[in-house]
Amino acid sequence: MSNLPSVVDIAEEGPREGFQIEKGAISTADKIALIDALSRTGVKRIQVASLVNPKLVPSWADADAVIAGFTPAPGVAYTALWFNERGLERALAFRDRLTLKGSISLSASEAFCRKNLNRDRAGQTEAMRGQTERHLAAGVPVTRIGVMAAFGCNYSGDVSPANVLATIQDGLAIAAEAGVTIRDLSLADTMGWATPARVERVVSEVRGRWPELVISLHLHDTRGLGIANAFEGLRLGVARFDAAVGGLGGCPFAGQPGAPGNIATEELVLLCEEMGIATGIDLEALIEAGRLAERIVGRQLPSAALRAGTLTAFRQNAA
Amino acid sequence: MSNLPSVVDIAEEGPREGFQIEKGAISTADKIALIDALSRTGVKRIQVASLVNPKLVPSWADADAVIAGFTPAPGVAYTALWFNERGLERALAFRDRLTLKGSISLSASEAFCRKNLNRDRAGQTEAMRGQTERHLAAGVPVTRIGVMAAFGCNYSGDVSPANVLATIQDGLAIAAEAGVTIRDLSLADTMGWATPARVERVVSEVRGRWPELVISLHLHDTRGLGIANAFEGLRLGVARFDAAVGGLGGCPFAGQPGAPGNIATEELVLLCEEMGIATGIDLEALIEAGRLAERIVGRQLPSAALRAGTLTAFRQNAA
Repeated sequence: MSNLPSVVDIAEEGPREGFQIEKGAISTADKIALIDALSRTGVKRIQVASLVNPKLVPSWADADAVIAGFTPAPGVAYTALWFNERGLERALAFRDRLTLKGSISLSASEAFCRKNLNRDRAGQTEAMRGQTERHLAAGVPVTRIGVMAAFGCNYSGDVSPANVLATIQDGLAIAAEAGVTIRDLSLADTMGWATPARVERVVSEVRGRWPELVISLHLHDTRGLGIANAFEGLRLGVARFDAAVGGLGGCPFAGQPGAPGNIATEELVLLCEEMGIATGIDLEALIEAGRLAERIVGRQLPSAALRAGTLTAFRQNAA
Repeated sequence: MSNLPSVVDIAEEGPREGFQIEKGAISTADKIALIDALSRTGVKRIQVASLVNPKLVPSWADADAVIAGFTPAPGVAYTALWFNERGLERALAFRDRLTLKGSISLSASEAFCRKNLNRDRAGQTEAMRGQTERHLAAGVPVTRIGVMAAFGCNYSGDVSPANVLATIQDGLAIAAEAGVTIRDLSLADTMGWATPARVERVVSEVRGRWPELVISLHLHDTRGLGIANAFEGLRLGVARFDAAVGGLGGCPFAGQPGAPGNIATEELVLLCEEMGIATGIDLEALIEAGRLAERIVGRQLPSAALRAGTLTAFRQNAA
């Protein structure tokens, strides 16, 4: 079936994406419990916290305590997210617990950049130039470009592949100036505009131009097409994905209250494993972690696979 | 992008699939209101009721009143479901309102047949032979074979494509005996076992053997892979699908409480329309009908597209 990879690398973003958007306060102990449960699933990368201004995002005021508190498992890389110098400083204090990597994050939509980051495109490029310098000065490698709104935008509508290419070009220019080589490219469907056709077009055009870049997809299931988009990525040979256990998280963007955020990790794992693509993740353990996440946030999460479970028990009963 | 069709034909099964599984009583007026709302969406086929034994399925005790009560729209075919002679008789009373077609319904899994229909495979074949005769005697055309459990089974595990082919062969033998020609083949993922890889394999093998059959897919979103499976169908050129507005319905089979049933019509329409495949359906009107369905059943339906809406308003605001 086309270029399906034999192995995929799934980065779990549930804790960071999920707890930020929940209405009720989540205790530090619960956040740590979920991270520890995820550490037992076989997932290789977990984004554990957002090192943002506690005045702006009170739900992550305990980010440092969460990072200090979870139990690292061997072979698992733990990451955090930050947007500015203060965030970087906080991250540097956890060099022993976190895998620190810098990313050049740009938006393919200028309108999204203005609304979400309060900067125009030039301003964001400038900010990323400065951040890249600070990362390198602190000994944090910068090997990745992240493109937000790569498939469409609630504020400016369709985003052309040409805009995505220009955005990557901007990121590569920042990297070249700083003397670093970019290996990883994340294409994010920040507002749920992707279709398999758009995924195919953008991935093909990016590869045609920069075959050396390793593409990862950050897909949202805002309109229910997330897993179909992931499948199209797999079909094209994409082998890196972000996902969130249970479909934790949501879509904070205009007009979409209650819409799901990231694709659910267990649906992606089920899709892969049932098609013979190895994820290294124990789906039963992952579903257990998803049930814990549901208990913690106190609401039903959008993942269907969380409710229906794996096919394993059915196969065993049939045997 | 491969063999994507330019037009698809979507059969709306929300009323029939959905109201049967809801716990609370749904009034006849509400059932009719949803059918009438769906008639205004541009959908061409609506399955409006299940003509089953009211002692076994009390929620469809009012099927005759529903069929008598909705307002037929020009160009829309209304269908109903029945399983026996008594159901056929009730359907025949509505020849002026319903499009009556007989189907030879068989299961690719013998275990499912026994559990769900209380018959072994031979018994089901015999029952379909009798039903086909009665249909033809009543002037109801029989041009379709439906294969249940075509991608896997909660009671017997994986279902091989060879089993699907043998089941179709059984159906064709019944048709040949009765002197009718089968044109339509429905492959149903009754218990949510399909993956895109299984869809590709089964569709390809069936086509290889009977290229003249027009395949439709009846997909369930039990584990969140339904829209990815529909996309794979589209990629293979399949142009007929069943779906249920809002993802109405559910999965009555062992071990899956709360799991979604049919794929949500609006997610399928969004997938198609955003990739340039015409459905003839007004997605905004369909989402309105889905919201009505949610009010009627009094619970949140699983469709993400129902919550997030179309991209139209975002595009208009951007323009």
